[in-house]
Amino acid sequence: MVYVTRRETFSAAHRLFNPKYSDDENERIFGKCSNPNWHGHNYVLEVVVAGTPDPETGFVLNLSDLKEIIREFILDKVDHKNLNTETPFMKGIIPSTENITIAIWRELSEKIPTGKLYSVKVSETENNFFEYRGE
Amino acid sequence: MVYVTRRETFSAAHRLFNPKYSDDENERIFGKCSNPNWHGHNYVLEVVVAGTPDPETGFVLNLSDLKEIIREFILDKVDHKNLNTETPFMKGIIPSTENITIAIWRELSEKIPTGKLYSVKVSETENNFFEYRGE
Amino acid sequence: MVYVTRRETFSAAHRLFNPKYSDDENERIFGKCSNPNWHGHNYVLEVVVAGTPDPETGFVLNLSDLKEIIREFILDKVDHKNLNTETPFMKGIIPSTENITIAIWRELSEKIPTGKLYSVKVSETENNFFEYRGE
Amino acid sequence: MVYVTRRETFSAAHRLFNPKYSDDENERIFGKCSNPNWHGHNYVLEVVVAGTPDPETGFVLNLSDLKEIIREFILDKVDHKNLNTETPFMKGIIPSTENITIAIWRELSEKIPTGKLYSVKVSETENNFFEYRGE
Amino acid sequence: MVYVTRRETFSAAHRLFNPKYSDDENERIFGKCSNPNWHGHNYVLEVVVAGTPDPETGFVLNLSDLKEIIREFILDKVDHKNLNTETPFMKGIIPSTENITIAIWRELSEKIPTGKLYSVKVSETENNFFEYRGE
Amino acid sequence: MVYVTRRETFSAAHRLFNPKYSDDENERIFGKCSNPNWHGHNYVLEVVVAGTPDPETGFVLNLSDLKEIIREFILDKVDHKNLNTETPFMKGIIPSTENITIAIWRELSEKIPTGKLYSVKVSETENNFFEYRGE
Repeated sequence: MVYVTRRETFSAAHRLFNPKYSDDENERIFGKCSNPNWHGHNYVLEVVVAGTPDPETGFVLNLSDLKEIIREFILDKVDHKNLNTETPFMKGIIPSTENITIAIWRELSEKIPTGKLYSVKVSETENNFFEYRGE
Repeated sequence: MVYVTRRETFSAAHRLFNPKYSDDENERIFGKCSNPNWHGHNYVLEVVVAGTPDPETGFVLNLSDLKEIIREFILDKVDHKNLNTETPFMKGIIPSTENITIAIWRELSEKIPTGKLYSVKVSETENNFFEYRGE
Repeated sequence: MVYVTRRETFSAAHRLFNPKYSDDENERIFGKCSNPNWHGHNYVLEVVVAGTPDPETGFVLNLSDLKEIIREFILDKVDHKNLNTETPFMKGIIPSTENITIAIWRELSEKIPTGKLYSVKVSETENNFFEYRGE
Repeated sequence: MVYVTRRETFSAAHRLFNPKYSDDENERIFGKCSNPNWHGHNYVLEVVVAGTPDPETGFVLNLSDLKEIIREFILDKVDHKNLNTETPFMKGIIPSTENITIAIWRELSEKIPTGKLYSVKVSETENNFFEYRGE
Repeated sequence: MVYVTRRETFSAAHRLFNPKYSDDENERIFGKCSNPNWHGHNYVLEVVVAGTPDPETGFVLNLSDLKEIIREFILDKVDHKNLNTETPFMKGIIPSTENITIAIWRELSEKIPTGKLYSVKVSETENNFFEYRGE
Repeated sequence: MVYVTRRETFSAAHRLFNPKYSDDENERIFGKCSNPNWHGHNYVLEVVVAGTPDPETGFVLNLSDLKEIIREFILDKVDHKNLNTETPFMKGIIPSTENITIAIWRELSEKIPTGKLYSVKVSETENNFFEYRGE
């Protein structure tokens, strides 16, 4: 079992906001992350697939294929987008990085051609990282 | 003459957009960076001050003072903000990273207590960096 | 279950030294790390909390709270300090990075407001990292 | 149980190539990585040892010893070498990073003086990482 | 005048070798870098263009255009290639990183659409960097 | 003219302290950096040499020679040392990073075998960098 990681980046706008809360409550709970005029990040995404290398190729999976899957199902829907209003798989979900990480797992888990999705990691800034392993 | 650099980061939303252009022209020239629903970045800011160390302290300037100046005049106006609509010193300026870099220079150049502002560097992503030296 | 990591840094002095050993033995076992005049490092600390995101906020825990807990219980006691003589929670403990990592776990494990402490990671240099998971 | 990581780097040439395949098949499966004139990488190797710190030293193992073991058994055989033709422990193995990672594990697993080898991680580029834990 | 930097990476094989020297001399002067079986690196390339931002766009030059120029004239000729035998612009040149940096400058200096090429930087490993400014 | 940079690291203890000042004044001016029990850093040192590549070797200078010069004249005197009390070339100098940078320049400027010393850069933390060019 080898764990293979592909790292990608995307730049997006978002705000933390729960429509059930008043503006004051959103401000109190989410602070500056709730700015109604948006802010944004360079997110770093790491997708980890676990599997046994094919003896013919030495590959768990072809990283060009994994890169293309991440591009089609994730990057095209988040890069240079507004995560609150434009990303289909974040619809109705508060775009905390916890929730982004879980949502990316759900988009990718059935798409991995060989091996199994083991982990999705997203960093929001150089000091905050998040990981989901489907548990 | 020693060159002293302080590195800071901020997260902001923006879009590239020239109001003189039609929507199609904005799209053609700025591409995905012109998305009307915004996107954002983790910007990295480096402020370089050049000067002679004070023989009593060994400092060109106290970095705590420089940090506080950057916080008051720059970070409080850009971090978790929308650069197009909320940052006073970007008003009427297309927020390309070139222009952000020049605007930060203009805000800071008269505020340096000892030594002189030598350079302002801003990176927009891990692959794109910009520098302005007041030339 | 999402794993949330907060990264912090601190700068401290230390020496590796076992009072049971002679000076020669300390020198032989710990080498230059036993220099009686001290040396120091920029330590990088990562604190990982595991939990389920609150459906109302999308947060496992508010990272501002975690940051404040790390500041109060760890950073205020190690940053710009001497780990051998000034840090209460290192008293009587050889300040190897293994032992620093375990001691930080012990300080933090009961302080996490929601979720559970999953891992403490400390890097001493860019080539040496240490992790403790309470096992 | 503390997990201790030592990071090292090496620079090597390789090509992905299965002698069972025709040139066209190698090209189709491995793409530019199959270039018969070779290419190369700066590989980053992380070796993780798990164990309990010795109460006398605070060490799981002396990192100077681990560094020397990695040098003797791995770096001397891969650094500034051709992984396809010069590295004894890669003989007859397609030098995919998956296979390099497993081969390094096999070379090191019996050589760790105290504690146990827990993980071998190799990155091939800044976007592709691989890990093997002996599972 | 703003300095705009685009960062790219490429992976290549090479050896340091002067055909005028005997094998022993090559070995003595270039050490392990002269291994006849090749070795390789992940090179990091930074291309710096200096110019005045266009008031209509805020750009010194469109970074998509610069990226495409670097791809066409440099990356396609060095990435996953052997710098000694396959790269046209290195023909007859010892592929020291000094010489690679100068050769890339020569390829690019006439190709910059707006602004002027200011600097080419190449790093060979994380500890060795080279810069050429056409002086 | 090519600018060649060699990057090295060292770990040292220090405190900022001017013996002319009272303890209160040292505390007021230097803050936590004046802790009498010391603190320390992982310093990153970059030495930049400018010169013309030798047509026979492609080298401005052999980086193995530069590495050895830095080891002998700098690293052996600062690594795992106390910069206030143990480093001969810092004797009587307040060990601000400005002053460390200038002192390293003075130690190295006459020792460069080919080319000329162009710049010495020292970072004290990941957010504070210093450069001296002999001006």
